[in-house]
Amino acid sequence: MAEEVKVFGACLSPFSRRVELALRLKGVPYEYIEEDIFKNKSPLLLKYNPVHKKVPVLLHNRKPIAESLVILEYIEETWKGNPILPEDPYEKAKARFWTKFTDEKCLPALRKAGWSPENEREKAVEEACECLKTLESSLNGKRFFGGDTVGMVDIAANFIGFWLTIMQEATGRKLLSAEKFPELFKWTDEFVSCSVVKESLPPKDKLLAFYKARVAEAKEAQTNAPK
Amino acid sequence: MAEEVKVFGACLSPFSRRVELALRLKGVPYEYIEEDIFKNKSPLLLKYNPVHKKVPVLLHNRKPIAESLVILEYIEETWKGNPILPEDPYEKAKARFWTKFTDEKCLPALRKAGWSPENEREKAVEEACECLKTLESSLNGKRFFGGDTVGMVDIAANFIGFWLTIMQEATGRKLLSAEKFPELFKWTDEFVSCSVVKESLPPKDKLLAFYKARVAEAKEAQTNAPK
Repeated sequence: MAEEVKVFGACLSPFSRRVELALRLKGVPYEYIEEDIFKNKSPLLLKYNPVHKKVPVLLHNRKPIAESLVILEYIEETWKGNPILPEDPYEKAKARFWTKFTDEKCLPALRKAGWSPENEREKAVEEACECLKTLESSLNGKRFFGGDTVGMVDIAANFIGFWLTIMQEATGRKLLSAEKFPELFKWTDEFVSCSVVKESLPPKDKLLAFYKARVAEAKEAQTNAPK
Repeated sequence: MAEEVKVFGACLSPFSRRVELALRLKGVPYEYIEEDIFKNKSPLLLKYNPVHKKVPVLLHNRKPIAESLVILEYIEETWKGNPILPEDPYEKAKARFWTKFTDEKCLPALRKAGWSPENEREKAVEEACECLKTLESSLNGKRFFGGDTVGMVDIAANFIGFWLTIMQEATGRKLLSAEKFPELFKWTDEFVSCSVVKESLPPKDKLLAFYKARVAEAKEAQTNAPK
């Protein structure tokens, strides 16, 4: 029986792009189903992820799995080739630690820094930079967080590797620069230069347009807010 | 060489108790080091967990690991007996999904419901109950989330099994009752009746005193707040 591998995702979502990147790294062919996550979630998405009602969902031989980091672990265990986690339990624990840090600390901090109202901006930027500094320290001279090849931390950090640059361009709020975070900046370069990574990134112009529309919306909301 | 297994924890912390419970389930002897997390963190804790500066830390043969869920995965991989995760990758993914849900959704919602100011109470309680309802649905007639034995979801849910009851007693805010959540309530009974679970819970009177002091502090802060 041919394997059935489907990904329910959204073009601009870093979370569903994580799943696509992992499958591509493993060389697993998959069918991609684009979800309209803002206006019209499909009945299948709601059926497969009734708890969070979010992308990504991986459907493997009719069995659904939700939550990008849970899916990455599943992919790693199901398709053994081109591992995205080290074999050694201690090194694996370290990779999981940094994956969690990226997901739970860096991403919320970066989003807050990008979108917080002007009067909260300074503090939010400071906190986000603190996170980036900590994450950078774990690179420690390596090409990727995973060493010589892209691993789970790199995949989880795809937002920092690609989305962040575009978010900065749209909002005019500079967080990650070569001067401030030389190692991390070099990593983003290495990351987006990988051919397999490139294949699992959204088109830059589409993401930029999305972020610019959001900036415009935020400005309008501020203008209309009661003084 | 004898194995060195140390846990840096705090008596009342459900997070460090998770690590202790997993080690006890595996029959791994360990040395326990109590940390004064509120007033005087030890230099060793700060050295071993410089990123979060929190308990728990597991030290295994001089190698430190932080973050309770990362530690649980490490324990599962290092000591294979009495597994706390299913072997099948799909069942394992489901266990990880519910572990994550318990940790990231239920716990913050329950804490918010327990400690939110009076005017935010109703909404917070409603949200917490929604989380409990979803979590309960995953029990689905089983004795434990892990099936017949305590597994990773049960360990992650130790707060709901024990701390929550005491928090309710101290705050007078009832969230989990036999009428509202019969299956989950039955689970808390089963959970705290396991001898190995009992051994890894804090003394009830100490936890109750801690929560009561917190209730008193909150009341005082409200009385002193500018009107």
